[in-house]
Amino acid sequence: MLHDDHTPTPAADVDPAIASRDELLQQRYTYRLRFTEHALSPSNPCLGEVLTSHDGDCRVLPVVDGGLADADPTFVQSLAAYLTASDGTAMACPPVIVPGGEAAKNGMGVFNTVIEAINEHDICRHSVVLVAGGGAVLDAVGFASSCAHRGVGVVRLPSTTVSQGDGGLGVKNGLNAMGKKNFLGTFDPPHAVVNDHHFLATLSDRDYRCGFSEAVKVAMLKDEPFFNEIETLVPALLARDDHATQRIIQRSAHLHLDHIVHGGDPFEQRVARPLDMGHWSAHRLESLSKHEIRHGEAVAIGLALDAQYAALVGLLDEELLHRLLAVLSGIGFDLSHPLMRDRAALLGGMEEFRQHLGGQLTITLPSRLGSSQDVHEIDDKIMDQAISMRLD
Amino acid sequence: MLHDDHTPTPAADVDPAIASRDELLQQRYTYRLRFTEHALSPSNPCLGEVLTSHDGDCRVLPVVDGGLADADPTFVQSLAAYLTASDGTAMACPPVIVPGGEAAKNGMGVFNTVIEAINEHDICRHSVVLVAGGGAVLDAVGFASSCAHRGVGVVRLPSTTVSQGDGGLGVKNGLNAMGKKNFLGTFDPPHAVVNDHHFLATLSDRDYRCGFSEAVKVAMLKDEPFFNEIETLVPALLARDDHATQRIIQRSAHLHLDHIVHGGDPFEQRVARPLDMGHWSAHRLESLSKHEIRHGEAVAIGLALDAQYAALVGLLDEELLHRLLAVLSGIGFDLSHPLMRDRAALLGGMEEFRQHLGGQLTITLPSRLGSSQDVHEIDDKIMDQAISMRLD
Repeated sequence: MLHDDHTPTPAADVDPAIASRDELLQQRYTYRLRFTEHALSPSNPCLGEVLTSHDGDCRVLPVVDGGLADADPTFVQSLAAYLTASDGTAMACPPVIVPGGEAAKNGMGVFNTVIEAINEHDICRHSVVLVAGGGAVLDAVGFASSCAHRGVGVVRLPSTTVSQGDGGLGVKNGLNAMGKKNFLGTFDPPHAVVNDHHFLATLSDRDYRCGFSEAVKVAMLKDEPFFNEIETLVPALLARDDHATQRIIQRSAHLHLDHIVHGGDPFEQRVARPLDMGHWSAHRLESLSKHEIRHGEAVAIGLALDAQYAALVGLLDEELLHRLLAVLSGIGFDLSHPLMRDRAALLGGMEEFRQHLGGQLTITLPSRLGSSQDVHEIDDKIMDQAISMRLD
Repeated sequence: MLHDDHTPTPAADVDPAIASRDELLQQRYTYRLRFTEHALSPSNPCLGEVLTSHDGDCRVLPVVDGGLADADPTFVQSLAAYLTASDGTAMACPPVIVPGGEAAKNGMGVFNTVIEAINEHDICRHSVVLVAGGGAVLDAVGFASSCAHRGVGVVRLPSTTVSQGDGGLGVKNGLNAMGKKNFLGTFDPPHAVVNDHHFLATLSDRDYRCGFSEAVKVAMLKDEPFFNEIETLVPALLARDDHATQRIIQRSAHLHLDHIVHGGDPFEQRVARPLDMGHWSAHRLESLSKHEIRHGEAVAIGLALDAQYAALVGLLDEELLHRLLAVLSGIGFDLSHPLMRDRAALLGGMEEFRQHLGGQLTITLPSRLGSSQDVHEIDDKIMDQAISMRLD
């Protein structure tokens, strides 16, 4: 009988001086962000430098988003040529092509492909997985890399507006599981992120605009002058003007990275997650549409909905609401979707969001430009009214 | 054509001021170690305190090693009663029993059981998975918890000498995959570790002694007086004297935690891993024996082998070699195993060890008491001779 119900006697055997010990563990990560052009040109040292700066000579496992490989038939060849020619890098195997889009995160397919390649090609903790593609592929490949040998380093080459300005910058990765977005994943900062805006040329108009809703979000939250600037650039963004796009992506990326580095909670141990403004409904709409709705599109709808709610409860003035809606529509986003008619299903996203973050519900709402307000309760009736107004 | 081979022109579009950014990210973890007695007695607040100190009221998912549940039929009931009665904790579901021993780490069975329980019982990032058991169960359950919602906190109740003095203290978790020990896993410090020496009462003699080889290892590496003390306690340890065992486990646990907290590399980003002295062959012997050899037994053999090698190359004097062998034998360990006759298979463990750590081979050898020496080359012929001497 091991566990008596008697009052434990002061344990003579347990030295009180060492019976209780609290420690603070610190882990440091270096994180590099680079903007460059023609990253795979043999004469551009940028990518080679971030690959080798980690730990001297570096074996590289290249993994490429199938969507990118299809859209740009020269990509895989250019990447292989670059890695072969670059000083200090050795390509462990030809680039591994994985399915692109949200399919990469559904099921263990991409995860297993990467784990098996890491094993087969003797990729170790001082090698690097170089992953090129959209946010879903970065997430799935990053998760696999962070689990193999308890973490193989990752260098990311984001290939979409949304991943260059937002998702590709983050310290998170993930897979969808149990019918829930990002149910599995880890926090694991990449060694480096290299953004090359020429990768964006092959995107459809629909994918091209997707990064702009995250830029609008972070401008609303953090940077009034940037919001004003986006307003003036709406026609240029719609016309895919390269200067305008680069400006928006760069500023968005830096604001996101500022938040991660200086926000004081890179691994999101607290309940508030301000960068997820508009995301409770966005994630739900992505799931409900079986990912027919893109993340950037869902974020535009989610932002509009939460701004509408914020206006109804008096947090956001009407003029600013209309400026926000005008910017998002102007860039080309639809700000509602027929799936929003299923109110119960949509509102279920709030509880899923609470569970994923844990603890108390915390929703970040827009208030003034460059700032936001966390609320811990949402009035269902008023949110219902906000949904109706968005559907009208 | 996206990737021309021309020399990239200085990119007018890329503002040089923001084109390159290096950041240092810091993540902090609190880590609590407690030694207590009768941890599940309703009047002992220790466990309740570490569960609730994390974030106020706490929902708990309890997971129990099947080996522990079998050996102590009152354990599961005591645990459930404790969690139900403890202030501020709510048991999310009755304790989940998972297979114990190395089987917990082979295949995805335990991992999936925990992931599914986390989903089914709405365990969030501010809940806690409480895991009680031996090192293999702590590893597998810890890995699953660290992946769900990108990390649900873990409190560990190690139930074996080896997990109370060594493995259960670590910041690592893992599963065996691709035929390799700990091929999958993460670095993720537990919120707390609660050691109750009464949990050890049901262990077989064989399991009971297993923690002592890790204690001898860390004493050799870090603490000469502790090594001398272990020598004097050999007869008491063999007789399962409770005072002696507690002393050895506590000191071993503190030395391991010192290394993690003050060693400057908690997530093992550098190549040296001094606490893994003797482990290259130990891990290999575990795999070769299909885990018939326990980890603690394999470590005793591995220590003896590396000490023999160190003596042959002149790093360790003969007297100290014989003291080490006498302590390990005295506690009851066999210091060789017939599987060592397959030299090629055994020596293959060195390359697997190098790959798992990555980069250059680094083997930590004993030299003087309380210190060690890293070497980056092992002479195969001399190691072969060391194996022969151990087999004689």
